[in-house]
Amino acid sequence: MGEALHGTETVDFHGTYQAGIATAPPQAYATLVALDLHTQTDRDGLRRMMQLLTDDAARLTQGVAALADSEPELALVPSRLTVTFGFGPELVRRAATVDAPSWLRPLPAFGIDRLQDAWSDGDLLIQVAADDRMTVAHTVRMLLKDTRSFARLRWTQPGFRRARGSQASGTTMRNLFGQVDGTVNPAPGTADFDELVWIRDGWLAGGTGVVVRRIAMNLDKWDELDRSGREQSVGRYLSNGAPLTGAQEHDEPDFEATTAIGFPVIPEFSHVRRARSEDTRQRIFRRAYNYDDAPVGEQISSSGLLFVSYQADVDAQFVPLQQRLDELDLLNEWTTPIGSAVFAIPPGCAEGGFIGETLLT
Amino acid sequence: MGEALHGTETVDFHGTYQAGIATAPPQAYATLVALDLHTQTDRDGLRRMMQLLTDDAARLTQGVAALADSEPELALVPSRLTVTFGFGPELVRRAATVDAPSWLRPLPAFGIDRLQDAWSDGDLLIQVAADDRMTVAHTVRMLLKDTRSFARLRWTQPGFRRARGSQASGTTMRNLFGQVDGTVNPAPGTADFDELVWIRDGWLAGGTGVVVRRIAMNLDKWDELDRSGREQSVGRYLSNGAPLTGAQEHDEPDFEATTAIGFPVIPEFSHVRRARSEDTRQRIFRRAYNYDDAPVGEQISSSGLLFVSYQADVDAQFVPLQQRLDELDLLNEWTTPIGSAVFAIPPGCAEGGFIGETLLT
Ligand code: HEM
Ligand code: HEM
Repeated sequence: MGEALHGTETVDFHGTYQAGIATAPPQAYATLVALDLHTQTDRDGLRRMMQLLTDDAARLTQGVAALADSEPELALVPSRLTVTFGFGPELVRRAATVDAPSWLRPLPAFGIDRLQDAWSDGDLLIQVAADDRMTVAHTVRMLLKDTRSFARLRWTQPGFRRARGSQASGTTMRNLFGQVDGTVNPAPGTADFDELVWIRDGWLAGGTGVVVRRIAMNLDKWDELDRSGREQSVGRYLSNGAPLTGAQEHDEPDFEATTAIGFPVIPEFSHVRRARSEDTRQRIFRRAYNYDDAPVGEQISSSGLLFVSYQADVDAQFVPLQQRLDELDLLNEWTTPIGSAVFAIPPGCAEGGFIGETLLT
Repeated sequence: MGEALHGTETVDFHGTYQAGIATAPPQAYATLVALDLHTQTDRDGLRRMMQLLTDDAARLTQGVAALADSEPELALVPSRLTVTFGFGPELVRRAATVDAPSWLRPLPAFGIDRLQDAWSDGDLLIQVAADDRMTVAHTVRMLLKDTRSFARLRWTQPGFRRARGSQASGTTMRNLFGQVDGTVNPAPGTADFDELVWIRDGWLAGGTGVVVRRIAMNLDKWDELDRSGREQSVGRYLSNGAPLTGAQEHDEPDFEATTAIGFPVIPEFSHVRRARSEDTRQRIFRRAYNYDDAPVGEQISSSGLLFVSYQADVDAQFVPLQQRLDELDLLNEWTTPIGSAVFAIPPGCAEGGFIGETLLT
């Protein structure tokens, strides 16, 4: 093959919206980190922190070393680097000027949840994504150094999709169950996406809400199920992601179709049936990554989905959907949410501005 | 950029030598796993295990699902996948027919070592490398499933370099200190490489020896040092990896050159001076990866080098080198070996054969 280098490709940092949400296709690697604010970090401190982090991110995403970058050479390969900031409830409370959106709080408890504190919540979210894992490592470290006097690390979750260039761009990703994952998803750049994702009013205008769920996938148990059982659990074929009533990935599922003996072809308990609502407002934009930790004990692997969804109103869009899946979804047999966090994503900023300025100035 | 897809590129599995050693440039991702044999795994079991694993690896590396592959779709993107097997002392002992090379044992203890059992030793090594992290995850899982009745996982260490295509191929990698790392290294395909790496006689003819060292790099401390101090510690410039006596990365260092006041330009304590011997036999082939774990406590990051070196004779080539570095090497101030293992890498096999056949048949 010829060399088509992508290391110098950049994604604009400044703009109406923060990058890393509508950025398509999603970069191959992402690390999400959450921080807890130090007790003494007040509104002034928050502003200084966000000014510092904005400056770092504005440079690093353009392939320029951050101001106090001790490894400036590692900054020269942005590879579509994006840095996206999100604010937890406590950060907004400390800013002490505006009301937080009502959905900015931990999700209601779900029956399927086995949440661990170590993977949940946080005051500041930083999502760092790029097509190069080295770039992600350097960027995360640089940003964490500059948060040191304001906050401490709460959790860090690295994730991956297929490598840049290993498949035709636009190929829907697969998760570690082998499923095509991400077929039915609002497309960045469409009016539908804008409507579902971006907030219109107040200090969050041009912002959105993000739900981060760490969902363990029990591959050892999944592998005991036969192929047809696995396809039934989701309602789509493993081969190409087509609905059980269709042939191509993007064929519209026929939820009315029945088998010769009268059962629905796409089972009642299937994930895609349960995840779809008649209320078209109950939709979200999913931008997930796979994770693959070191197995513990008798496990062969310890993998899952770093589920990340963006939506303007978490309570109106995400919660009813997750509630339906909590009530019934065969996939729950093999998946377990072990972490959960909600953040408000402030809008983007213009050059000279900073992320969070609508809250902190 | 145009799309130059690399997902379907394959590296031959069969041949005189195992793939994954001379495979150049090294793939972007590698996970090394070590297994401990079950007590009841005898010579017969070893043969069955290696036949099974060879069959899996021969298929997966060519982009073909393994025989009992539950996620066959994940096998379709080999991305230069290689699978390389190594045998620890206990495995060779159980095979009970031949003498192990005298170097096949834990390395002598070094003063700098802070070895943890959890990152050291093992009976079977599997190095899985590819330009796609998903491919590595799927392959490791598939192979581990097939070892289940013979062995259990001891440790797993994932590592990365820059992404495929983010920089011109042939660019020397950088480690997380920001150093150009790998400049002086025998080049695969040369007589020099063959001489240093491949064993000529006995059941290991066409094989080699591997040393795997997990070396923590204290980035927090490293960042406190100024740039010139960092360059002195290694004897090379951070900007392009040139020796302190030269201008280009591949310039020959001048170890005799002195400063105006009579000190060596490349300090006596510098890593490159200490790592070079007058005895040209004391050389190794380095094929390292970076690692970046979740930081613990007050750390900003928990990173290091997954140091991997191949050499025909570990005692004659690696040990004296490591001993010199143990005695004096300023880099030791910021680096700490926390894991160590030695394996014999058997030769490759022809189609129909299996890795380890010269030991197990
Ligand atoms: C590890 C857990 C999960 C796995 C493995 C998984 C897998 C899948 C798969 C294979 C599909 C079908 C292809 C597609 O349209 O993307 C799908 C669809 C979908 N999933 Fe999930 N999913 C998981 C968790 C969730 C969660 C937590 C939510 C939201 C609460 C969710 C919401 C959706 C939605 C909205 C769709 C599209 C449904 C439609 O066709 O309208 N999924 N998921
Ligand atoms: C984290 C630990 C280490 C770091 C950060 C490191 C870094 C470096 C750097 C930056 C160079 C100069 C560029 C090059 O030629 O590659 C180098 C050279 C070298 N290193 Fe290391 N190294 C480490 C550990 C080791 C170990 C454990 C060994 C062997 C025991 C070793 C053996 C060598 C050799 C043989 C050279 C080439 C010397 C020459 O110019 O002849 N290194 N290393």
